[in-house]
Amino acid sequence: YATFKSFIDNTYIRVSLPAVCFVWQIAMVVLFGVFIRYDEESDEKGWNEFKKSHNITSNIENDFYFRYPSFQDVHVMIFVGFGFLMTFLKRYSFGGVGFNFLIAAFGLQWALLMQGWFHALDPVTGKITIGIESLINADFCCAGSLIAYGALLGKVSPVQLMVVTLFGVTLFAVEEYIILDLFHCRDAGGAMVIHTFGGYYGLAISWVLYRPNLNLSKRLNGSVYHSDLFAMIGALFLWMFWPSFNSAITNHGAGQHRTVINTYLALASCVLTTFAISSMSQKKGKLDMVHIQNASLAAGVAMGTAAELMITPYGSIIVGFCCGIISTFGYLYVTPFLEKKLKLQDTCGIHNLHAVPGMLGGFVGAIVAATATEEIYGKEGLIETFDLTGKFENRTMSTQGGYQAAGTCVAIAFGLVGGVCVGFILRFPIWGDPADDFCFDDEAYWELPEDEETIPPVLEYNNHMVNKHHDTHESQFSLEES
Amino acid sequence: YATFKSFIDNTYIRVSLPAVCFVWQIAMVVLFGVFIRYDEESDEKGWNEFKKSHNITSNIENDFYFRYPSFQDVHVMIFVGFGFLMTFLKRYSFGGVGFNFLIAAFGLQWALLMQGWFHALDPVTGKITIGIESLINADFCCAGSLIAYGALLGKVSPVQLMVVTLFGVTLFAVEEYIILDLFHCRDAGGAMVIHTFGGYYGLAISWVLYRPNLNLSKRLNGSVYHSDLFAMIGALFLWMFWPSFNSAITNHGAGQHRTVINTYLALASCVLTTFAISSMSQKKGKLDMVHIQNASLAAGVAMGTAAELMITPYGSIIVGFCCGIISTFGYLYVTPFLEKKLKLQDTCGIHNLHAVPGMLGGFVGAIVAATATEEIYGKEGLIETFDLTGKFENRTMSTQGGYQAAGTCVAIAFGLVGGVCVGFILRFPIWGDPADDFCFDDEAYWELPEDEETIPPVLEYNNHMVNKHHDTHESQFSLEES
Amino acid sequence: YATFKSFIDNTYIRVSLPAVCFVWQIAMVVLFGVFIRYDEESDEKGWNEFKKSHNITSNIENDFYFRYPSFQDVHVMIFVGFGFLMTFLKRYSFGGVGFNFLIAAFGLQWALLMQGWFHALDPVTGKITIGIESLINADFCCAGSLIAYGALLGKVSPVQLMVVTLFGVTLFAVEEYIILDLFHCRDAGGAMVIHTFGGYYGLAISWVLYRPNLNLSKRLNGSVYHSDLFAMIGALFLWMFWPSFNSAITNHGAGQHRTVINTYLALASCVLTTFAISSMSQKKGKLDMVHIQNASLAAGVAMGTAAELMITPYGSIIVGFCCGIISTFGYLYVTPFLEKKLKLQDTCGIHNLHAVPGMLGGFVGAIVAATATEEIYGKEGLIETFDLTGKFENRTMSTQGGYQAAGTCVAIAFGLVGGVCVGFILRFPIWGDPADDFCFDDEAYWELPEDEETIPPVLEYNNHMVNKHHDTHESQFSLEES
Repeated sequence: YATFKSFIDNTYIRVSLPAVCFVWQIAMVVLFGVFIRYDEESDEKGWNEFKKSHNITSNIENDFYFRYPSFQDVHVMIFVGFGFLMTFLKRYSFGGVGFNFLIAAFGLQWALLMQGWFHALDPVTGKITIGIESLINADFCCAGSLIAYGALLGKVSPVQLMVVTLFGVTLFAVEEYIILDLFHCRDAGGAMVIHTFGGYYGLAISWVLYRPNLNLSKRLNGSVYHSDLFAMIGALFLWMFWPSFNSAITNHGAGQHRTVINTYLALASCVLTTFAISSMSQKKGKLDMVHIQNASLAAGVAMGTAAELMITPYGSIIVGFCCGIISTFGYLYVTPFLEKKLKLQDTCGIHNLHAVPGMLGGFVGAIVAATATEEIYGKEGLIETFDLTGKFENRTMSTQGGYQAAGTCVAIAFGLVGGVCVGFILRFPIWGDPADDFCFDDEAYWELPEDEETIPPVLEYNNHMVNKHHDTHESQFSLEES
Repeated sequence: YATFKSFIDNTYIRVSLPAVCFVWQIAMVVLFGVFIRYDEESDEKGWNEFKKSHNITSNIENDFYFRYPSFQDVHVMIFVGFGFLMTFLKRYSFGGVGFNFLIAAFGLQWALLMQGWFHALDPVTGKITIGIESLINADFCCAGSLIAYGALLGKVSPVQLMVVTLFGVTLFAVEEYIILDLFHCRDAGGAMVIHTFGGYYGLAISWVLYRPNLNLSKRLNGSVYHSDLFAMIGALFLWMFWPSFNSAITNHGAGQHRTVINTYLALASCVLTTFAISSMSQKKGKLDMVHIQNASLAAGVAMGTAAELMITPYGSIIVGFCCGIISTFGYLYVTPFLEKKLKLQDTCGIHNLHAVPGMLGGFVGAIVAATATEEIYGKEGLIETFDLTGKFENRTMSTQGGYQAAGTCVAIAFGLVGGVCVGFILRFPIWGDPADDFCFDDEAYWELPEDEETIPPVLEYNNHMVNKHHDTHESQFSLEES
Repeated sequence: YATFKSFIDNTYIRVSLPAVCFVWQIAMVVLFGVFIRYDEESDEKGWNEFKKSHNITSNIENDFYFRYPSFQDVHVMIFVGFGFLMTFLKRYSFGGVGFNFLIAAFGLQWALLMQGWFHALDPVTGKITIGIESLINADFCCAGSLIAYGALLGKVSPVQLMVVTLFGVTLFAVEEYIILDLFHCRDAGGAMVIHTFGGYYGLAISWVLYRPNLNLSKRLNGSVYHSDLFAMIGALFLWMFWPSFNSAITNHGAGQHRTVINTYLALASCVLTTFAISSMSQKKGKLDMVHIQNASLAAGVAMGTAAELMITPYGSIIVGFCCGIISTFGYLYVTPFLEKKLKLQDTCGIHNLHAVPGMLGGFVGAIVAATATEEIYGKEGLIETFDLTGKFENRTMSTQGGYQAAGTCVAIAFGLVGGVCVGFILRFPIWGDPADDFCFDDEAYWELPEDEETIPPVLEYNNHMVNKHHDTHESQFSLEES
C-alpha cells in the first residue's frame, strides 16, 4: 500500500499551495487595511506630537533605537537560525530552510493581527497600532510554529505547515494573553509561551500523525558531511543571538543589559556539559553533531523566563550546566524511547531542545520570581521588573512565583490539546503529504538540480570536444548539441 | 572557432589584474590623501567642538549610534548577501563570492570619492568629510555595480568587472546627483538610483556582450544541491536585512522606524505570492529554488522609495503581493523571452529582481509622494520627510510626485546608455574574458582544489599503507613519499 | 612506527574530555559564585541608584546601548568567523567549527575571571563586577587562543585545545595587564594583546609539537570546493565585522565612529593588493582561495592599535595596502620556509594573518601615538584618547609611542615563552592527540555520517521497490525491511 501510495502521487500541491497562499495573503491585505496602523513612534505626525507631549528633545529616545539591534538578531534567528538548523538532513535541506521561510513569512503577518487583537487593540478607534516591539513579538510568535515544524520535518506538506502555523499562531496569542495579561507573568524570552508551547504543540501533532512505516524512508533520515555544516550555521546563529532573543523586549536599561549577561553565561556553560555528555556516550569518546547542534542551545531556552531577573551570574551558569546534561541525555535516550514506546516521531528532537528546557525554564523563572526581594531589586526596581502596578500593585512575590508556575502549565496544556486537535485536522487526506517512502525527500516538493557527480571534468570535456571536432569534422552546431 | 579560442587561453590575467588593482589602489591612496578627511562627528577635535557648539551633553547623539547597526546590516548584504546569492552556479561559486568581494572593496573607495565630490565637497577647504552615513552611501553605490555583475556572472573576467565598477560608480554618482540634488527626490533605499540604474546598466552591458555560442557552457549553467543552499544564505541575509537597507539613511526617529515596518511587511507578503506562482508554474506543483532565492526579495527593491513615506502597512503588503507575482512571472517567461528574442543573456535574472521592481518602486514612490498631505504627515512632518526647505519650500506634492517619476526615467536612461557604452569598451579583446566554452567555470580564474571524490577512505588508505609496509619492508621514508 | 601508532588508538578521549569539561565547568560555577556580580549598569538596584547619582534621565545612557551592536558583531566573529574560517580542510570541518565552539565557550568564562581579577576586582568587596564591556573583553581574550588553534588545526585533540585555552587566557590576562595597565598603552582592537600574542603563542606551541611525519596525512591537508565556500563564510564575517571588533571598546562618540571608518578603509584597500599579489604569483594569473580568505583580513589586524587614533583615512588605506602585500607574500613564501627550515607547521598560516600583521600594527600604533599633537586632537581630545589622567597626566607623546612599541615586544615575548612552555606540557602522552597519519581527519573525534555518494537515487530506489513488490508478491512488512 505504502509503495502504491506514491504512485497516486498525493504530493500534488499545484492547486492547494497556491490557493492557500493567495487566499490567506489576500485576507492579510484586507485585515491589515481594516485594523493595522503605525503607532505613535513610527507615525510621522504621531512622533512629532509624542515628542512635544513628553518633552523629548532627541530622536534617540524613540523605542526604535532601544530595540532595533535586538530585532535584527531575532530576525536572523527565525530565518537563518531555525531555517538552517533544519537543513541537516541529507536530502531535505531545501524543505528545511524553504518551508521555514514560507511559514515564518505568513506567520508573522497573522501574528501581528492576533497579538494586536489581544494586546494592542485601541478600544476607541478599533485599530491596532504597531511599532518595532510588535515586529519582535510577531517574530517570537512565529517561533512557536517553527519549533513545531522541527518535530514534523520531512513528513508533512507545505500546505499542512501553513495550517500548523495558522492554528499555532492563533493558539499562541490566546495562551500568551492568559499567561502574560491575565496571570501577569514575566516571560521575556518565552520559555513558557514560545518554547514550552511550541515544543508540546509540535510533539502532539507528530503523535497524532504517527507513521508506522516511516522506516521506508530511513535511508534519507540522516545527515551527510556538508549538510551537518549547513546545520551548524543555523545552530551558531541561534546560539550567538540568543542573548538578543531573551533581551529583545525586556525593560530598557539594566533589564536588557542583565538579560544579555545571563543568557550569554548560561549558553557558554551549556556547551561544555553538552560536549562532555556527548563524548561520554560513545565507545571511543567521539562527539555527535546532533548533540552539538542542538543541546548546546538548550540553555538559551531555559533562561527564557529567568534571564531578565536577578538570577545572578553563577545562577545562570548552573542553569546552563544542567541543561547541557538534560538535553544531551534526551537526545541519547528519551527521543528513541518516545519513538518506540509512545509512537512519537520527533525529527529534530524538539522534545529535548524546546519542550523540556522550556518547561524547566518556566519553573526556574517561578523560583527566581518567588525569591525576589526589595533588598535585591530595590523597591522601585521590583515594581518595574515585575510591572507591579494597577491591580497587581499588592501582589506578593510568592504569589507571582505561583502564577509563573501556573503559566508554564497553561503553556503545556495549550500545546498538547491544541496539537492533538490540529493533528486530527491534518489527517484529512487532502493536504498532499508524502507517502511513507517519500518522506525526508526534497524530490516531493522541489524541482531539484542534477546531481553533482554529473559535472563532466572541464579539461576532459574540452579535450573530448576538440578530438571530436578534429576527428569527425563536425560543424559547430553539432558541437553545441553534444 | 569557439573551441580553439580556449587554447589561445585568453583568460591570462597575470598582468592585467595585478596592474589594475595596484594602479587603481595607488590612485585611491593619492586621492584620499588629497581629498578625504574625518567629518565633525568622527574627528576627535571636531566632535568636542560640535558638542559644545550644539549644546550636546551626551555622546549618544553622535550620528554613529543612529546609523551603525543599519550600516553593519547593509555591509553584510553587500558582501555576504550579494556574494552568496551569486554562488548558486555549480562551478562558479568562487567567482560569485570572490569577484563580488573584489569589486565591492574597490567600488566603495571610489564611491567615497565620487559621491564626496558631488555631495560633500567643502567649497572653502576643498576637502570631502566622511562619517558613518558616507560609508553607508558608499556601500549603496557599490550595490549598483554588484547588481550589474548579476547579469554578467560567469561570462566576464575580473578585470572587466573592475571596469564595470569604475564606470558604474561614476555613473551612479552623476545620476544620484541629478535625482537627489537637482530633482530633489526622496529615494532612501534606492529603488531608482540603485536598483533601476544597476539593473538596466547590467542588462545593457550584457546585451552588448551577447554570446551566440554560450550554450557551449550550458552544462555548467545550473546549480547543484549544495550550491543552491549557499545561495540561500545570501538570499536570506538580503531578505532579513532589507529593512536596514531601506532605513539606513532615512530620517532619525519615526522615519527609520516606519521604513523598517513597511519593508518588513512587504517582504513577508512577497514570499507568499512567490511560493504560490512558483508552485503553480510546475506540473506537479513543485517549487523552484531560483524563484524562492530571488523573487521573494523583489518587494525590498520595490519599497526602496516608498518605505520611508506614509504608505501605510496594508499599502506595503499590497506592493509585496504584486512584486512576488511580477518577479516570479519574470523568471518564468520574461528572462527566456529576453534571451531568445532580444539576445540578452541575464545569468541571475536581474531584470526580474532589480530592473523591473526598481522601476515599479520608483513609480510607487511617485504616487505616494504625490498623494501626501499635511493631514497625514502634519505640517512639520511633511517638510521634514520631503526636506522642503530652501528653494524647495514651496514645492507642491504633485510636483514632487512628478519629479519622482522623472527621476525613475533618469535612472533608466543612465543605466541603458551607460551600459551600452561600457559594454562596447568591454568588447576590446584585451580583458581576458573566457571563451564561450569556458564560461561559468571557476577553472578559468581560480586555482581549484582537487575534486571531493578523490579523498581516499581513511581506513582503506591506512590498511593499504600497512599492507604495503608489511609486504615490501619499505623504510618509513618511502612511506612518506607514497 | 607512525602507522602502528594509529592502531594503539590514542585518540580515545572518552574519559579525559568529559573529565576536563566537567571539572573545569564546576570550577567556573564555584568561582563565579564567589567572585562575579552584575555591575552598576546591569544590576536592577544599582542602575536606579546610578541614574540618580549621575543625574541621568534616560536609559539610553546605559553603556549597553553604546556597546551592544558591536558586541554581537564580535560574538559572530568569534564563533562563526573564526569557526568557519577553519572549516576549509576537506575532512576537518567538524573539528574546525566544533572545537572552536568548545574552547571559546570555555575561554570566555575563564576570561571573565582572569580579566576581572586583574582589572575589575573591587578592593573593598572582593568582587568582580561585569557588564557588556566585560563580555566584549572576554570574547577578545578567547580570540588569542582561537588564533593559536589556527596553527594547531588538525593536529591536536580537543583536550589539548582546552589546555591551550586555559593557559592562553591566563597568559593573555597577564600580558594585557602589563601592556594596558602598567605601560598604559592604547590597544582597542588588540593588535598587540590579541593578535601578536595569539599568533606567536600558537606558533611556539606548534614548533614544540613538530611532527616530522605529518605528510602521512598529506592527502587530507587541503580543501575541496565546498569546504572553501564554508571557509569563505567565516572569512567574510570576520572581514565585515572587523570595524566592530576594533571599535567595540573604544571611547564613546567620535572614538568609536573614527575607528570604524579607519578599519573599513584599511580592509577595503587590503583586498585589492591581496588579489593583485595572489594573481601575480601563479603562472596564468589564477587566484588562490587561501590568500583571499586570509590575507584580505590582515589589515583589520594591523589597524588594531591605530584605528582609534587620528591616523587619517589615507593613512588607513596605506596600512591596508601594505598588509595585503605582506600577508600574501607570507602565504606564498614564508609559511613554506618556516615549515622546511624552522620545522614549524602552521596549518592556517596564522604567522601571516595574525603574528606579523599584529606586530606591524603594534608599531604602526606606536608611530601614530608618538606623532599625536594637541593641534590634531585638541587638548581635551588628546587627554581623552590616551587617557592621560592621574599618574600619566604628564606623559609626553613620544614616551607614549615608546611604551606602545615596548608593549608589542611584551606581547611577542609572552607568546613565544608561554607557547614553548605550553607546548612541552602538551607533549605528555596523555592527551589523546592523533597519530601522524590520522591528522586533519574528523574521523578521530567525531561520529561521521555516511558518505554522500551512498544516497540511492530516489526513483531507482522506488522502481526497485515496486519491481520487487510486483515480482515477488512480498508483503508490506518485508518491504519495510529492505
